[in-house]
Amino acid sequence: MKKLGRFDAMLPVHPERHFRSSETVRDVVIGMADGLTVPFALAAGISGAVGHYDNGADLIVTAGLAEIAAGAIAMGLGGYLAARSEREHYLSERRREEDEIIEKPAHERREIVELMAEYGVTEIECTPLISALERNPAGWRDFMMRFELGLEEPDPQRARASALTIGVSYIAGGIIPLLPYMASRDVGMALRASVGLTLAALFAFGWVKGRFTGNQGLASALQTTVIGGLAAGAAFFIARAIS
Amino acid sequence: MKKLGRFDAMLPVHPERHFRSSETVRDVVIGMADGLTVPFALAAGISGAVGHYDNGADLIVTAGLAEIAAGAIAMGLGGYLAARSEREHYLSERRREEDEIIEKPAHERREIVELMAEYGVTEIECTPLISALERNPAGWRDFMMRFELGLEEPDPQRARASALTIGVSYIAGGIIPLLPYMASRDVGMALRASVGLTLAALFAFGWVKGRFTGNQGLASALQTTVIGGLAAGAAFFIARAIS
Repeated sequence: MKKLGRFDAMLPVHPERHFRSSETVRDVVIGMADGLTVPFALAAGISGAVGHYDNGADLIVTAGLAEIAAGAIAMGLGGYLAARSEREHYLSERRREEDEIIEKPAHERREIVELMAEYGVTEIECTPLISALERNPAGWRDFMMRFELGLEEPDPQRARASALTIGVSYIAGGIIPLLPYMASRDVGMALRASVGLTLAALFAFGWVKGRFTGNQGLASALQTTVIGGLAAGAAFFIARAIS
Repeated sequence: MKKLGRFDAMLPVHPERHFRSSETVRDVVIGMADGLTVPFALAAGISGAVGHYDNGADLIVTAGLAEIAAGAIAMGLGGYLAARSEREHYLSERRREEDEIIEKPAHERREIVELMAEYGVTEIECTPLISALERNPAGWRDFMMRFELGLEEPDPQRARASALTIGVSYIAGGIIPLLPYMASRDVGMALRASVGLTLAALFAFGWVKGRFTGNQGLASALQTTVIGGLAAGAAFFIARAIS
């Protein structure tokens, strides 16, 4: 996942907006790819067990919709709460860093020297940098947060939007493998249609996902398709073996 | 999630091992908390739809095991492949940084000055730092990777171990809500036992998760329990409404 560089934050509005929209696309694709995988595998799995029932297709649609509701809530709400905890963690580390700058400035200066030594910078070469940070405690704190701890301030708005986008996309992705079971009461036929439709969708979404996360489209498309196929195959054979 | 600071990497073996074991606990808890949530919600959901069937409990166990197989593969393999892509992304960015240092050193120097200006460090105060990095191109490259792009080299061993731990923990967590349906053929009774057992397990795992990710145990326990409860409640009412 590409993180926002310091430079991006300093750029004017247009590139920032570009960044935002590609983050949203990423969330849509993540939610949808997961939504395509698990409900698809579940429907295929139950097909292996209830194929001979009169109302097999209805049961699959019911179980599929229950899974979609559960998965969307777990993924969306879980992701939102995880982001909130991450922000709390960031703020508590920042308070600790502020206390250390006030109470143990010599120790913090030492940390900068040791940090820079890893890049071949000597203690004497660090002196002007340290003097500059001492002039500006907020800058010093932010410097330690980013360079010592590797933490960036999480955006709470972004977490909320991201959780909602992922949850809704999970629902949209999860509906696709269920469509054939809604259209046909013949479970065997619906299963074949669901496999074809969903693998095609996984391939397409994997490709989009690959393009947006900076990797190659084809490799990502194959990965997404293979994960979905393996998950569905495993679910199908397990369910058939035990039923 | 607490990232590994530069200092940790320089510490001797003991703290590093401590970090490793707490990462494993975190993976166990993440996999298990998710495994507890979605199969639990699915079982509760299907209970709302098949309560009056003779073999309702069998159907729930079949669907639950199919979901567990699918979820463990999607989560474990998906996580592993995502980690691999992240590593590829890291290496490609590093090659780009190496090229830029050779081809556009003036531009890279400018980037350091602009980066440091955010912390109140002047151009003149950056000069010794820049000279030190120019002496040592590998250090310069690593400095830009970490300080400009905020990227740390992902550990491929860690990604594999983490994916396996999360997948296995998902299975272990997912079995818990199914146990009552395996033990009793009375779906209503099994549902009540599954709700009690799983909410208790979610609470316990949420607590452990909170302790290990540096947040408060109780808040995390309540969060995990509420997510699982909401997901299961939603799945139950949706399944009952449509069946």
